[in-house]
Amino acid sequence: MLGPKARVPVDATGDFNENVPVPTGTRDVLPDELELERGVTLAILDVFAAADYREVATPSLEYQETMRLGDPRAAELAYHITDGDGRILVARFDSTIPIARMAATTLAAQQPPLRLCYVQNVLRPIEPKRGQSREFVQVGMELLGLPAPAGDAEAIELACRVVQAAGVDDFRIAVGDSSLFGRRLGELGVDARGAPTAYDAIMYELETRDLVGLGRELARAGLDDGSCRELTELAQARGGPELLDRPGAERLRELATLLDAAGVGENVIYDLGLIRSQTYYTGTVIEIYGAGLGTAIGGGGRYDDLVGRFGRDLTAFGFALNLDNVCRIRQQGSAA
Amino acid sequence: MLGPKARVPVDATGDFNENVPVPTGTRDVLPDELELERGVTLAILDVFAAADYREVATPSLEYQETMRLGDPRAAELAYHITDGDGRILVARFDSTIPIARMAATTLAAQQPPLRLCYVQNVLRPIEPKRGQSREFVQVGMELLGLPAPAGDAEAIELACRVVQAAGVDDFRIAVGDSSLFGRRLGELGVDARGAPTAYDAIMYELETRDLVGLGRELARAGLDDGSCRELTELAQARGGPELLDRPGAERLRELATLLDAAGVGENVIYDLGLIRSQTYYTGTVIEIYGAGLGTAIGGGGRYDDLVGRFGRDLTAFGFALNLDNVCRIRQQGSAA
Repeated sequence: MLGPKARVPVDATGDFNENVPVPTGTRDVLPDELELERGVTLAILDVFAAADYREVATPSLEYQETMRLGDPRAAELAYHITDGDGRILVARFDSTIPIARMAATTLAAQQPPLRLCYVQNVLRPIEPKRGQSREFVQVGMELLGLPAPAGDAEAIELACRVVQAAGVDDFRIAVGDSSLFGRRLGELGVDARGAPTAYDAIMYELETRDLVGLGRELARAGLDDGSCRELTELAQARGGPELLDRPGAERLRELATLLDAAGVGENVIYDLGLIRSQTYYTGTVIEIYGAGLGTAIGGGGRYDDLVGRFGRDLTAFGFALNLDNVCRIRQQGSAA
Repeated sequence: MLGPKARVPVDATGDFNENVPVPTGTRDVLPDELELERGVTLAILDVFAAADYREVATPSLEYQETMRLGDPRAAELAYHITDGDGRILVARFDSTIPIARMAATTLAAQQPPLRLCYVQNVLRPIEPKRGQSREFVQVGMELLGLPAPAGDAEAIELACRVVQAAGVDDFRIAVGDSSLFGRRLGELGVDARGAPTAYDAIMYELETRDLVGLGRELARAGLDDGSCRELTELAQARGGPELLDRPGAERLRELATLLDAAGVGENVIYDLGLIRSQTYYTGTVIEIYGAGLGTAIGGGGRYDDLVGRFGRDLTAFGFALNLDNVCRIRQQGSAA
């Protein structure tokens, strides 16, 4: 499957050479893979450029307090560095937060909408499981100042175009509304303010897609059988736009109309239980799946109050592709 | 000078926005500059590819003990991170050491010569002076397994080609021998083993090009006036190949013949006092200067015993361009 590279096997856990290992979860990238990665990157950047998105870059390190404004939990988990003046820095674990900061500061004078894209690595000191890395490259975009549903539709259509340009022909974009499940949960009596422990436990099970755990936590929160059934069904509701004919799904229904009009409806699957681990999403969220890989090759969503935390009132939507995962699909395809 | 960017000034010290600053010595990179940077990068990579150099990438983090094998002083000064298992990591401050590690481990099965190139950022927590950054991108090459003088000549010729491809027309490559001054100093009675304190003090003044300090340290080491004069003259000896008709410069003379034959002699200036701060250089060293910028746009040299420290006996030569400095020259040129 790996062709010429099979001669020099590289263990993704970084322990290839016992004498001089690389850090856990990191790896050397060899010429064949990097050549593919560079080709894919340039193809994606061409699509972004044609859609009037311009490339920016942010520092590899940010003040922890900056990143905490965007995602307090992730800012705690990130790699920490103490700067010379004693302030805490973190290695970039996400590009959306720094670009939101940039939009509010360095780019403060630019009139919306801002169309930005980037190619940046991120570092996340997770416990590596099969195929997971602590470092990977993301190619992504941020569209700032174009509200839902038009901004969501532009971004999701662009996601389809870049995945195609990256050479992944067989893909689906799961589209959900990160506020939908929580809102219904609140209506049924478990809201984030009144019962934060139960709420967080339920949302954690939803995020990790553990249906058994979800059922357990819903019952533990005191919900009656009917409500438990309704929410468990909601968590599993995946399908075409016919799924959106229910109370609470009005925003997604509006978006579906735009996506159909843009001609990308057949690449989209609606997923009413979809939420994402990043805490800054406020509306539509997406995950991108390619055939043959059990994990997402990308994701993103709407974050309408993040830029505001840095001092500028600006709605926003962004997504990123995990370039390593895209290349894994391409390598499988060329070996088939 | 900066054209459209003048609308959004960015302070290189990172304190553009007082409310949400970026870390000292880092900065956001805006679209106009990044567009130039990407064009320059691709032009350089084309030259590398045509010369049969293939791109590799190494992790952003390395174990400190790995980097210490290459440059103990720099590994102390680097940004430190404690990994989950308590081991000390450092942010990449140099790409030559990781690629030497890679050549001895991940690429152990590849027969020499290995021709590798890279585009990687580095982080160095220096005290930022005017125009200096703590983070910058390097585009570079490593040629492993082709000894001096042929390897030196191939690399220096390639350096000329990539600087031209980068759009810097008016440039000079200073070529020296990092062992020359120290060897003569030893012959005159101050050697690294017998008088390490005096030796280090003298070499520090040489490295920082402080002639007053150099004279002071030479006298303090007890050298007579004639020796002081000779060494001070050696430290300042810069010019054409006629400079190489002296004892000790035999290796550079041999190299000069090859560079003339390759047709790049007129881009080279010999500099007998040139040494570099990296401690792994063993022979020829180079620095690349472009007209209009007071600081080097690149540098490199021969490091014949570095790969051996990782377990593989392999001579090597490498250089890197500082992409930020190259782009600064290009921006000056387009504003002229």
